[in-house]
Amino acid sequence: MKPAVAVVEPQTLGNVGTIARAMKNFGMDDLKLVNPPEFGRDSEAYGFAGQAREDVLPNYDAVTLDHLVENYHTVACTATTNEDARKHRRFPFKTPPELADSLRDVDAPTVLVFGREDNGLTNEEIARMDEICSIPASAEYSSLNLGQAATVTLYELRELTVGEFQHPDVERERADEAEIEGFYDHFAEFLAAIDHPEEKREKTLRLARRLFGRAHPTGREVRTLRGVLRRAMYHADDE
Amino acid sequence: MKPAVAVVEPQTLGNVGTIARAMKNFGMDDLKLVNPPEFGRDSEAYGFAGQAREDVLPNYDAVTLDHLVENYHTVACTATTNEDARKHRRFPFKTPPELADSLRDVDAPTVLVFGREDNGLTNEEIARMDEICSIPASAEYSSLNLGQAATVTLYELRELTVGEFQHPDVERERADEAEIEGFYDHFAEFLAAIDHPEEKREKTLRLARRLFGRAHPTGREVRTLRGVLRRAMYHADDE
Repeated sequence: MKPAVAVVEPQTLGNVGTIARAMKNFGMDDLKLVNPPEFGRDSEAYGFAGQAREDVLPNYDAVTLDHLVENYHTVACTATTNEDARKHRRFPFKTPPELADSLRDVDAPTVLVFGREDNGLTNEEIARMDEICSIPASAEYSSLNLGQAATVTLYELRELTVGEFQHPDVERERADEAEIEGFYDHFAEFLAAIDHPEEKREKTLRLARRLFGRAHPTGREVRTLRGVLRRAMYHADDE
Repeated sequence: MKPAVAVVEPQTLGNVGTIARAMKNFGMDDLKLVNPPEFGRDSEAYGFAGQAREDVLPNYDAVTLDHLVENYHTVACTATTNEDARKHRRFPFKTPPELADSLRDVDAPTVLVFGREDNGLTNEEIARMDEICSIPASAEYSSLNLGQAATVTLYELRELTVGEFQHPDVERERADEAEIEGFYDHFAEFLAAIDHPEEKREKTLRLARRLFGRAHPTGREVRTLRGVLRRAMYHADDE
């Protein structure tokens, strides 16, 4: 499930580039523009696109809204949801994580539709779409810039769209339980070696367990700390 | 827990404005700039700030990195984490949702630190900070634009920072179970009234239960559908 991303009548070319860049950051590539201004390689669209200037942006399709409604499961993206169950143009809506959950099982070609910088999508346009997505933001100022709204929405879909993330495998890096328990044993020996008051040792050990446990240490961190303990114990024996 | 947001040596004023806007969208107000270019009301900083031009942006503090390190719990935000447990400059890191979880219980003044557009934060700068946050993105192109990275990170902290969201209370709007069960009873009567084959009724009812159950209908939706059923049954009786 890798949705297309459409922008209806974008006015600011920088936003088109920003959206293309976010698409590439989060593994999407099918950009549709409805009635965009003309733009070339020297425009802000290319200026803001980062590496998406090589593929996502130049390969965009110019389409009509009719084409999208007729051929796609359409998701209207809008900040404005000042409605409740009495109206049905902008309600009910999903938040981006709810959208990601629900698209997981959708097999149809799907497009996320973003509107104009100033007025978003009209009620008439939204009425033609299949569902609505809206980013939770401050009631005081809920309107995100178009490029920022698209970035947040695409980011939330990343588990559906990104093949391989840039991050190393954190689970694999975490020390295994035996290593961590070995550290606590070592720490207990260390407390004895430095003559930490006997009646306080249990409490201090528990504190260490809580502190290091919260931090989920890596194997290297555990080994480094044990090296420090060894050295400290060596000097304690010296006295 | 409402963190401050710092940008170290921003080069593009539009990004400063974009970050100020995202701060206001997600309920934050304390912007710190380390060695920013000079800018005035007619700059792109103000042009990109939306309504944050009224408060967040003009109230920014010019600070040094030393000041941040000495007075705050510092979170280095970086796209580049191409390291594993063998190195400790950019690893371990938290993703933005993990950061949000962990900051919930932190009582200290905290600042999210973003780096330069081209090179982010240096290894030396990151070494001075307390923890690291990195956005999961495509291995093919993991570097978000500065303004987009800040927007995603601030969005993920919204539950800690936004007092009141713009969204209506969806839970409240959902029809209660009795209303929904009433609809299924009504639907069963409707199937009888229109002479739907008796052996198929149970299956059709189950299908309706699955379909409407997935959609979590509002009270108004249930009442509207029951009105439609009533009218259809009235006409069925007519024949």
